[in-house]
Amino acid sequence: MQLSAPPLSTNLLGDLQAKIDHKTKPIGALGQLESIANQIGCIQQSLSPCLNNPHLLVFASDHGIAHENVSAYPQAVTAQMVDNFLNGGAAINVFSKQHGLAFKLVDAGVAKDIQPHSDLISAKIAYGTQNFAHTLAMTKQQCLEAIETGARLMKEVISQGCNIVGFGEMGIANTTSASAIMTCISDLDVQACIGRGTGLNNQQLAHKQKVVEQALAHHQLSSNADALNVLATFGGFEIAMMVGAMFTAAQRRCTIIIDGFIVTSALLVAKAIDANIQDYCLFAHCSDEAPHQALLDFLDAKPILTMGLRLGEGSGAALAYPLIDSAVRFLNEMATFESAKVSQQS
Amino acid sequence: MQLSAPPLSTNLLGDLQAKIDHKTKPIGALGQLESIANQIGCIQQSLSPCLNNPHLLVFASDHGIAHENVSAYPQAVTAQMVDNFLNGGAAINVFSKQHGLAFKLVDAGVAKDIQPHSDLISAKIAYGTQNFAHTLAMTKQQCLEAIETGARLMKEVISQGCNIVGFGEMGIANTTSASAIMTCISDLDVQACIGRGTGLNNQQLAHKQKVVEQALAHHQLSSNADALNVLATFGGFEIAMMVGAMFTAAQRRCTIIIDGFIVTSALLVAKAIDANIQDYCLFAHCSDEAPHQALLDFLDAKPILTMGLRLGEGSGAALAYPLIDSAVRFLNEMATFESAKVSQQS
Repeated sequence: MQLSAPPLSTNLLGDLQAKIDHKTKPIGALGQLESIANQIGCIQQSLSPCLNNPHLLVFASDHGIAHENVSAYPQAVTAQMVDNFLNGGAAINVFSKQHGLAFKLVDAGVAKDIQPHSDLISAKIAYGTQNFAHTLAMTKQQCLEAIETGARLMKEVISQGCNIVGFGEMGIANTTSASAIMTCISDLDVQACIGRGTGLNNQQLAHKQKVVEQALAHHQLSSNADALNVLATFGGFEIAMMVGAMFTAAQRRCTIIIDGFIVTSALLVAKAIDANIQDYCLFAHCSDEAPHQALLDFLDAKPILTMGLRLGEGSGAALAYPLIDSAVRFLNEMATFESAKVSQQS
Repeated sequence: MQLSAPPLSTNLLGDLQAKIDHKTKPIGALGQLESIANQIGCIQQSLSPCLNNPHLLVFASDHGIAHENVSAYPQAVTAQMVDNFLNGGAAINVFSKQHGLAFKLVDAGVAKDIQPHSDLISAKIAYGTQNFAHTLAMTKQQCLEAIETGARLMKEVISQGCNIVGFGEMGIANTTSASAIMTCISDLDVQACIGRGTGLNNQQLAHKQKVVEQALAHHQLSSNADALNVLATFGGFEIAMMVGAMFTAAQRRCTIIIDGFIVTSALLVAKAIDANIQDYCLFAHCSDEAPHQALLDFLDAKPILTMGLRLGEGSGAALAYPLIDSAVRFLNEMATFESAKVSQQS
């Protein structure tokens, strides 16, 4: 596959803005909904964009770095939560069902066999990554295989008519992976890139920072290291798979809803490969995981929600979905000043 | 009617929090959704609250102060937009339909006769208020009549099984009314209470400030003036009607969704009468009308959305509704650690 995204065509932007400005409301009065409508119109190259067969893909994988006690939960929780997802009991199931999002769980590399299920996409690269405190999280070949797999399964989803996808993830210790990636690519101070994950106390947080610092020192990547190299060194299979899925989505004009810290770290990798990718992304929320705000700032990204969420699973993406839907609906369904015979600004 | 709200009983709060904390997610990971779930549980006095027959009531009225050229739009737009609401062409129609909210337009005092319609509640107090630059906006008797009318129609809505209601408004020049009310009750500097409304330029904004300052000087209300006095002096019929509707909602354990600046100014009046009222309110959004942030701060209120909206009509209330719904759904539908056999925090 090509790790690239076509430049977003903005040739309809003037017509889209004119359409928005003729709606029965003061100029600009729908705020961020207006910029979302413009962006989706540009992505779909349509003055009347629509949201078709929306999907929410949760990529699950285990992380060798979990053995360094960087999470408040044991590694077994990844597989347990996969069962919970497939049984419909997790937050993301509730929110996906609420909004009619087709939910799929992608086993990118859970450290346990998962029984077949209609909502499961089996795409296991290995039974978890290696522990990047001591060695590469994955081989270069595994990294490329995960990216290709993400691209392939995204193609499959798009072939079913989907033109908007939310990404989510599950993987005990994956904030540690995302933090190491963020430190390498953003060049921000390591402390600014690390948060409490599922709820570390101060002592545990200090330990997590030490683990990441030592791993960064161990691997000694140069400050301009290749993004794929960073991904293979510190990444998770779910992160790599999302990178591939993002490029396929952009190439096929499918709008991408970015969830929280981990999904944003996958976009950070993708953007380091091709900056055009971000133009296909909406940012669902700013999470309470401390480095997420800094990462959004680094990307110059404006989140839709700020509700103190820090759950992952794509929960923020699902919660933001109806607002994205509202943006498309007002563009298509509102009356114009002319059609409604309402006087315009004097 | 009694202008009072019962103190919110918090006797279920411990059990609600325990129920939330047993859900398959890290403690606190659903952020603001968790506090919304707690609040609605307390309002409904239930560990399994539900949202029934949700309504979106838009109160429309005209304002005599419009004759001072304080709006970017002519007064006729109020009635034109009422037609647009009843024809289904406004933003609030689109968003209400999207979320299954029963939409009703209340004619509280539009300066034109409105033809009967199934979505119209006719409750006209007069053909607009008087111009408060020179005289009281309404008599004390009109003010009480508007409040009583709001209480009565809210009872009617609740009798249809509604237990959550979003309030919205339409009325050319009503930000000027809300600004004068805010200045009187909050005792904040008048400039901090005035914004651009539907889109004034700097010169028009300066004029609007001058109009409000002169009106405040003209009426010379004392700094501890009775809230009903403030309401009669500067208010609109839609604002007074919402005050009455809010008290009825609280008395009947109906959750109130506060929209933007005008609706919040109605709550400010209600809170000055009985501070308990706020415990029944969710704040949909912080609007781009500049004083709204200051007013929310004054009320110590945390909005759900901050999307640069400044449309009124209850549009923010409707947009926030699915998030409120999500709060109730996760509380009722998510699995627990025990039921899903997921390991808890170590």
